[in-house]
Amino acid sequence: MELRIDRQALVPVVQQIVDALTGWIRQDAVQPGTRLPSVRQLARQNLLSQSSVNEACERLVAQGLLASRHGSSFFVAPSPVPGVVSTDPSRQQDTLAGAGETPQWALQLGCGGLPESWRESDDLGYAIRQVTRTDMAGLFNYSTPLGLPALREQLSRRLKHFNIEADKDSILTTAGATQGLDLIVRTLLQPGACVIVESPGYSNLFDLLRLHKIEMLELPRTPRGPDVDVLQDLLAKHRPSALFVNSACHNPTGTSLAPAVAQRLLQLTKQHAVLVIEDDAYGDFQNSARTRLAALDADVVYVGSFSKTLSSSLRVGFVVAAPSIIARLSEVKGITSMGVSRFCESVLANLLANGAYRKLVQRQRQRLGVDTAALLQVLEDADWEVFGKPTGGLFIWAKPPISDYAGLQRLARRFGVLLSSPTAFSPSGADSDWLRINVAYARDPRALVFFRAATLDRPQVS
Amino acid sequence: MELRIDRQALVPVVQQIVDALTGWIRQDAVQPGTRLPSVRQLARQNLLSQSSVNEACERLVAQGLLASRHGSSFFVAPSPVPGVVSTDPSRQQDTLAGAGETPQWALQLGCGGLPESWRESDDLGYAIRQVTRTDMAGLFNYSTPLGLPALREQLSRRLKHFNIEADKDSILTTAGATQGLDLIVRTLLQPGACVIVESPGYSNLFDLLRLHKIEMLELPRTPRGPDVDVLQDLLAKHRPSALFVNSACHNPTGTSLAPAVAQRLLQLTKQHAVLVIEDDAYGDFQNSARTRLAALDADVVYVGSFSKTLSSSLRVGFVVAAPSIIARLSEVKGITSMGVSRFCESVLANLLANGAYRKLVQRQRQRLGVDTAALLQVLEDADWEVFGKPTGGLFIWAKPPISDYAGLQRLARRFGVLLSSPTAFSPSGADSDWLRINVAYARDPRALVFFRAATLDRPQVS
Repeated sequence: MELRIDRQALVPVVQQIVDALTGWIRQDAVQPGTRLPSVRQLARQNLLSQSSVNEACERLVAQGLLASRHGSSFFVAPSPVPGVVSTDPSRQQDTLAGAGETPQWALQLGCGGLPESWRESDDLGYAIRQVTRTDMAGLFNYSTPLGLPALREQLSRRLKHFNIEADKDSILTTAGATQGLDLIVRTLLQPGACVIVESPGYSNLFDLLRLHKIEMLELPRTPRGPDVDVLQDLLAKHRPSALFVNSACHNPTGTSLAPAVAQRLLQLTKQHAVLVIEDDAYGDFQNSARTRLAALDADVVYVGSFSKTLSSSLRVGFVVAAPSIIARLSEVKGITSMGVSRFCESVLANLLANGAYRKLVQRQRQRLGVDTAALLQVLEDADWEVFGKPTGGLFIWAKPPISDYAGLQRLARRFGVLLSSPTAFSPSGADSDWLRINVAYARDPRALVFFRAATLDRPQVS
Repeated sequence: MELRIDRQALVPVVQQIVDALTGWIRQDAVQPGTRLPSVRQLARQNLLSQSSVNEACERLVAQGLLASRHGSSFFVAPSPVPGVVSTDPSRQQDTLAGAGETPQWALQLGCGGLPESWRESDDLGYAIRQVTRTDMAGLFNYSTPLGLPALREQLSRRLKHFNIEADKDSILTTAGATQGLDLIVRTLLQPGACVIVESPGYSNLFDLLRLHKIEMLELPRTPRGPDVDVLQDLLAKHRPSALFVNSACHNPTGTSLAPAVAQRLLQLTKQHAVLVIEDDAYGDFQNSARTRLAALDADVVYVGSFSKTLSSSLRVGFVVAAPSIIARLSEVKGITSMGVSRFCESVLANLLANGAYRKLVQRQRQRLGVDTAALLQVLEDADWEVFGKPTGGLFIWAKPPISDYAGLQRLARRFGVLLSSPTAFSPSGADSDWLRINVAYARDPRALVFFRAATLDRPQVS
């Protein structure tokens, strides 16, 4: 079997093998059960390493296109069309190895990150080479418990743009925002405690709280932020220890906190001595400096990330909090992880110091702004309801004219589109008629055809 | 103030600033309280970036040589001679930013890792450049929950050398061995449970167990492994859920498990249904394939690391266990960290695939073997008692002729030597007359002078 690998191409070899095998299975309509040549044979015929061929096959197994017997021989899986997968990154990982590795026939319209085509490798590659060449400690040593001083210095400066005052003792680097949230939950909350979360909200946070046996109270999200009347009610009836909130570019609705809502929210939580945790993982996609709770109140615990903008692979995020809280989190971080990769911290410090990161997010914001405007027009033309006009970020939360999710899903699949799960964004796993649309995927012709078809199909379905 | 920075030198600029300021403070015997020129001034005069100068000053604050006022101005700290610091890497981090960054006057004789001068950057740098140039997914994407398939494939092959059979579904990559141990403790053990740990043993494990409110039973370590008679007794009197053990190159004694001890240990733990966790973080320093519990019993949970040999900065380790356990650990890993850095996983996979890692540890073993033999001779000549002749690895556990730790510590400091803490390796924090000697630091003239002086001083002290 000839795979036609182009060694000069920018696409990694393994991805090319994945694409070639996917094409063979789908375009040649190969019978399920057909056995592939052995990994050794494929490698030899195409002058590839066995490990590349094997990794490609493993990915196709993960995607449901291939199956394996005894881990050594591969054959075409029973049904070549996989089911719709959950689109939150944490869940995605089981079936798709990352946003950029979606098989060509599937557009992850509800995905949580940027497509690989949006990522930029020049400045990142430069910073990596710099650290590799000049920073022996960065290559080899453990970092410090709070995180690399040079990185915390840069973060402190950067936070000033959000009007957040944080000196270096108030900043803790973490292995992505996820380790930050885990440290907060395991250190500051007790099993059996109850906390308030936004609904719809971030599915991995719900999993994390469930893992720690923490009860969730649902706070509805409005286009202007959490519903503060319901918040008042919840605070009066329960004794929650904490409130988790996305201020800017809320996941999944794309909306941001209005200043008046922020004020009222802080008043209420202060009154009831509730710890506020502000997850700002998508905050750098914000068009301008919008309201951040941590800018209004130094007691707010703030979580930041670079996974959505720069790279999900480096695993560097951070927490901002009062020094006494940072000291507690830092101790647990040290004992449970020995710190963040110093190499990755150095690379990020480099990109923040030389301005490359600032310019990267400027480009991303501009491009997202244009694409968001275009998508809003498309959705309006196709009679989709939009929850709240986004003020920036990756997401639009939209309700299709068809209220039958199964029908919609079948329709989407026909055009090679994968939708977000109808239950992923609910703390209780309840069904929803709303979909998370990732703006960066929505200009794809498959998405445009799907939006229109969902409208045309309406009479038959409803 | 002229700092004389050499931009062509291999030593990073920040380290050079640290060294220059250390020299100024110590050689010029500057008065405590003397104020340094401002960061801005120092940077301008020496054509340095302010962030480099600032980072260097922050490191000196961490080392106790400088103090800072309002985080902006620096002055010479009251006493320029810092106390002895704990030498376990987790504790070290508070005062020293990593093994390689010890100030020149201090030899960390009891340190837990290799000196920076032993680290090798050529192959590592090559692998980093490879991944940066050719692997877009490695640069940008999340990894998969179990870890990069190509890396697990390599690990599976490598484990065969230890006679450990592990297919890819039995291997989970982790952010260093530390995340592996944390996942095991938080997922497989309950707060309030009791477990058996070796004494002396690994201090960060003790901290981790305390953090999870798990009670520790002390199992004495003999030169042939844990004392199995005491083990039998502990199993009869208590109901421990798990046993943690270093089979090879035990930390801190450097000894390895005898085959007969391994057999009896597994018999006993099997009989009492106790989970065995084998921490093999130093295992790659072993001269030949010694007994591994995981090779004898597939129910043993095995933890591996690359922090001691290749780099502590990449944060890649792994856990081997039955697929049902791996699945549970993997779920918690995903929820609490979103996986290991795919970039770092790819770099490591590259070094394992091209044989560079295998050759690196061969060189390290050979060098350690020579240095261990030399050190044993020195210790014998100086009348130090050795706990058990090491079979490989970094450590010798030795008892000096002086039994007064405070006196010994004063003596060591006089020669610029830092000793391991007398309490760090005891689960209960009890005092010990034994010291952990790191072989890779022991050929330094300061160490040789100290070993001899400890003998000569004996009459006065005892």
